[in-house]
Amino acid sequence: MHFFSDNNAPAAPAVLAAIEAANAGMALAYGADEWSERLDECFSRYFDTPVRAFAVATGTAANALSLATLVPPYGEIFAGEQAHVLRDECGAVELQSAGARLTRLPAPAGLLPATELAQWLADHPVSLHSPQPAAVSITQASECGTVYQPRQIGELSEVCRQHGLVLHMDGARFANALATLGLAPAELTWRCGVDVLSFGATKNGAIGAEAVVFFDPERARDFELRRKRAAHLLSKMRYLSAQLLCCLEQPFFLQNAVRANHLAARIGASAGARLLYPVQANAVFLAFRPGEKQALRERGFGFYDWGPPRGDAGRFVVSWNQDEADVAALCEALAAWS
Amino acid sequence: MHFFSDNNAPAAPAVLAAIEAANAGMALAYGADEWSERLDECFSRYFDTPVRAFAVATGTAANALSLATLVPPYGEIFAGEQAHVLRDECGAVELQSAGARLTRLPAPAGLLPATELAQWLADHPVSLHSPQPAAVSITQASECGTVYQPRQIGELSEVCRQHGLVLHMDGARFANALATLGLAPAELTWRCGVDVLSFGATKNGAIGAEAVVFFDPERARDFELRRKRAAHLLSKMRYLSAQLLCCLEQPFFLQNAVRANHLAARIGASAGARLLYPVQANAVFLAFRPGEKQALRERGFGFYDWGPPRGDAGRFVVSWNQDEADVAALCEALAAWS
Amino acid sequence: MHFFSDNNAPAAPAVLAAIEAANAGMALAYGADEWSERLDECFSRYFDTPVRAFAVATGTAANALSLATLVPPYGEIFAGEQAHVLRDECGAVELQSAGARLTRLPAPAGLLPATELAQWLADHPVSLHSPQPAAVSITQASECGTVYQPRQIGELSEVCRQHGLVLHMDGARFANALATLGLAPAELTWRCGVDVLSFGATKNGAIGAEAVVFFDPERARDFELRRKRAAHLLSKMRYLSAQLLCCLEQPFFLQNAVRANHLAARIGASAGARLLYPVQANAVFLAFRPGEKQALRERGFGFYDWGPPRGDAGRFVVSWNQDEADVAALCEALAAWS
Amino acid sequence: MHFFSDNNAPAAPAVLAAIEAANAGMALAYGADEWSERLDECFSRYFDTPVRAFAVATGTAANALSLATLVPPYGEIFAGEQAHVLRDECGAVELQSAGARLTRLPAPAGLLPATELAQWLADHPVSLHSPQPAAVSITQASECGTVYQPRQIGELSEVCRQHGLVLHMDGARFANALATLGLAPAELTWRCGVDVLSFGATKNGAIGAEAVVFFDPERARDFELRRKRAAHLLSKMRYLSAQLLCCLEQPFFLQNAVRANHLAARIGASAGARLLYPVQANAVFLAFRPGEKQALRERGFGFYDWGPPRGDAGRFVVSWNQDEADVAALCEALAAWS
Repeated sequence: MHFFSDNNAPAAPAVLAAIEAANAGMALAYGADEWSERLDECFSRYFDTPVRAFAVATGTAANALSLATLVPPYGEIFAGEQAHVLRDECGAVELQSAGARLTRLPAPAGLLPATELAQWLADHPVSLHSPQPAAVSITQASECGTVYQPRQIGELSEVCRQHGLVLHMDGARFANALATLGLAPAELTWRCGVDVLSFGATKNGAIGAEAVVFFDPERARDFELRRKRAAHLLSKMRYLSAQLLCCLEQPFFLQNAVRANHLAARIGASAGARLLYPVQANAVFLAFRPGEKQALRERGFGFYDWGPPRGDAGRFVVSWNQDEADVAALCEALAAWS
Repeated sequence: MHFFSDNNAPAAPAVLAAIEAANAGMALAYGADEWSERLDECFSRYFDTPVRAFAVATGTAANALSLATLVPPYGEIFAGEQAHVLRDECGAVELQSAGARLTRLPAPAGLLPATELAQWLADHPVSLHSPQPAAVSITQASECGTVYQPRQIGELSEVCRQHGLVLHMDGARFANALATLGLAPAELTWRCGVDVLSFGATKNGAIGAEAVVFFDPERARDFELRRKRAAHLLSKMRYLSAQLLCCLEQPFFLQNAVRANHLAARIGASAGARLLYPVQANAVFLAFRPGEKQALRERGFGFYDWGPPRGDAGRFVVSWNQDEADVAALCEALAAWS
Repeated sequence: MHFFSDNNAPAAPAVLAAIEAANAGMALAYGADEWSERLDECFSRYFDTPVRAFAVATGTAANALSLATLVPPYGEIFAGEQAHVLRDECGAVELQSAGARLTRLPAPAGLLPATELAQWLADHPVSLHSPQPAAVSITQASECGTVYQPRQIGELSEVCRQHGLVLHMDGARFANALATLGLAPAELTWRCGVDVLSFGATKNGAIGAEAVVFFDPERARDFELRRKRAAHLLSKMRYLSAQLLCCLEQPFFLQNAVRANHLAARIGASAGARLLYPVQANAVFLAFRPGEKQALRERGFGFYDWGPPRGDAGRFVVSWNQDEADVAALCEALAAWS
Repeated sequence: MHFFSDNNAPAAPAVLAAIEAANAGMALAYGADEWSERLDECFSRYFDTPVRAFAVATGTAANALSLATLVPPYGEIFAGEQAHVLRDECGAVELQSAGARLTRLPAPAGLLPATELAQWLADHPVSLHSPQPAAVSITQASECGTVYQPRQIGELSEVCRQHGLVLHMDGARFANALATLGLAPAELTWRCGVDVLSFGATKNGAIGAEAVVFFDPERARDFELRRKRAAHLLSKMRYLSAQLLCCLEQPFFLQNAVRANHLAARIGASAGARLLYPVQANAVFLAFRPGEKQALRERGFGFYDWGPPRGDAGRFVVSWNQDEADVAALCEALAAWS
């Protein structure tokens, strides 16, 4: 009963089918194939506005390359304290941006409040000597399994605009946020001020495919050169692009997220007072009493610790293909303790 | 009739089958899966010596990350003038190494002679002020479709040892070199002094999978951190590793190279005086008379110019899946002009 | 009446005299001159242990190059929230280290407690995905005009040793700390676990000269190459080295610091409840009532705001050459408000 | 009899006097002082056009920072094979530019012909995969002691304009070129198409002061942030600026160069067939018969080898303060061998 990570799930059948369909005959390399050439159009339709979209193989690449395109080497990027770009990318943003600063801000339950950003900017005057504030990165759905409301994103965007900052969204679990909010993709991106999105497909059923989506095509500037230089322009790009196209165009992708969110909510509902954060996507975070984590593991539940090592919290991620029986068993175990 | 690039070919059926076979159930992410955990052992058997092997998605990543692991930021890397690392990676080595210098040396027919390297080193004294010579990168099979003999590699290695340089081999078409030389993989790598290899599978039938192979496991040092930071540690790494395993363990991989080399040799044999370099792998380079390139293209042959734009040379690459009829037609066209 | 910064003071007469004395005849460039060749010996005597010492022109260069020598590109460096490396060097550490992460920790009154460091390390498990903890940087005297006791440094050093971190000291105002503590230079550096020191001379009477001092000469490894590459190896290095030698060997240097500290203490004693931090070096930080800052400025006192723009605090730095009358006037003005 | 390098010479009396004159009272740090604030105006007058000028302490800083301001990380910079930026800066350009490529071109006698540049650009098509040509760097006077005529610079500039490249001049010995050509500073810079100049004062009599001069002030863009981040914004900047001002405004500076050039010409006239390059500045390059270098050294002449170690050539640099008797003795020794 595997709740470690949605990265551990296999690919959805539709994704494998799309790869096989793309495996026919010759196709120009490096993105000049018919699949890759449809990305801009397909993402533009998905987001209901003209965008530039670029495929990469990992979410870290999407985050680091999109930020590096928009931020100078002496720039400063603000992110919530739990942000993947801060804690789980081993300095990828710094590499691609040639040394931009990542500054962490408090982000209760994984969500960065606009007031925290505004307060920091008010307290830290900018000069020739300081890093130069340049961007904000938020994660939707967040690393704590919570979701920004469009209004909250709009407030962040307002602060960004006042200070000349770019707003980046790490959407490794964008589909889960969509499923939760029940809104069109446009509603939680450019319509509330997001400038660039790392659109994730891998965790929700792809083999390995993410996209960088620039809502202002002008801003895509030198992204292609940066992607190539970062060794993220694949020669046989068609296989990446085909994955993305089928995720955007077929219903399974949103359905996967809806299903995973629903199962996570069931776990959350059984968790009672153990719940650390509201369950708004496909992950559940629980604070246990002594011995409980050990007991669950002995009963076959696999999950990672959350927070300090040897602390009392655990993270349970529901994958798109999670067996309902796993979830039922976990709910039962939790309910028995309540 | 598509002779543009072996990057344009689809994946071999065995590779797709391996991906499908890997698509079962949960598997730990980031390389802790059962496929990835077999890489070291499988590559060690392939090379008949204990190695460390790491999967990445592109050859550029393999080249840049392996060199960056072995070279300081103020290091100097020597490469032949046609080298992919120099001309076709948009500065990837410089990015990953934080600014190492690539110094080009003459390399007739794509092969860097040990004498050129030795001469440069003799002529350029090293001081605190100069870049610090640190590595040599050679391409096997070369960008000109030629192949280093083990003796030639050994001579380069000897110069490297005298000057404390590391010897890197860009093996994007390593299988083609193997097929040509009819030797065991060990014979053209560590036995003649290669320290680290970028092992290519993509061009010869994979969807997108390359490996960095360190013949001295000690040298792998911080490769894993560098790969992660470069966003080349895939979450669902199993799909990359499964491709590599099937290429190493199944006969199709060497057969693909043998076949492509053979077809290229047929083209070469028809080319007569137009031949620019000996045909020793799966590519043929031809110098045409005025109008001939245009004539071939009008008859449906697709190929890239070679050398200066609007020059008279062309490159024809035979892919693993090339239709024999394409080759026959090209041979006929060339023979008719002889 | 100029209390803006000790960077605004001129050079001490002894420093100018040393420069003139060095201006005789030819001298080998790039540090092979007789002055530069004495640096190691002179700093070793000063610190009562064999050290390697290197001259640079700015404190930012000293900080960034010493940290970059000791920290990998994916390393993490911890510093107190007021640290100059964090706030006032525009990303210099990130540039020289090729992207290391600077992580800020709470540092009341400018001093980073060992407990904060230990807590962070306990709370943030290290993995392949995270930045790799590599160093701690503390400032002595601190940016708040306070001073670490050797015991406090020893506690930090103990945490560093447990986690394999290097301990760096930004000693832009090292002389002021020495003057306050009345200890030998060894007592607040290597004897309590400091691995590398940025030794400042500029603020205390030099024209522009700082030194990087490695207490473990092995650790100096490639510093010289990094300094050269950073364009901080001056051709006429004798003028920098001569400044440093005279600061180490002549009494004016410590006397300057004693005098400035003494004058700052007088201001502090007049400040009453306005005092933000204890006065332990040559700077005084005051929190004013509305209108008071304006009133002081109108009476001719020059000083910078401290903290948020339009906040109520101000910073007063006493320079080595500060006119006593300036101080007396300021004390009088402050006392009148008490 | 010291002919090693003009970097070994002391500072001119006027420069020391300027430093002393600047050493009076308080002055705002980081370039807000009265000397630094005059730089733009003073350099604009010197070059007879509105420029932005920035002081740095080393020529390497001037070169690397000016190029980094104008070139992206994936940019390619062309330079003659003897260029200081290529051979004697340990990768400084790569550091500041975050990895731009330096491509060497043939440069007979140290001068890069426009035809070589044009030929390279014609032969190397630019694509997404290649480094992106971005700048040319030439050295005036060159590393071989020769001088570009304005017409030659104009031809290079013409090729640059056709390909969208920036033209940078490394003027570490700019005064020597001025002295040789007898032209106004404008004539060998912006009037023939130079975009940015590293203006050298150190070798010709300063203690350590160079300037970056942007002939298009718009291009200075983020230079100040890059200089700060590189730790080349000195706190007590007045001492650097005062050196530059006195070099521009007092006659000694050009006189120094005229004198050194004249003495070098005398050596050249005595050298006969040993002369490697025409003597057009303050350096003389000689090819000796076996044993001659040794003989000269035994007679007390100090000079560096030129070219390969243990080769037969030597470099003799005349410093601004060179004793005429040294020159006479060298001329005599050479003439005796003719």
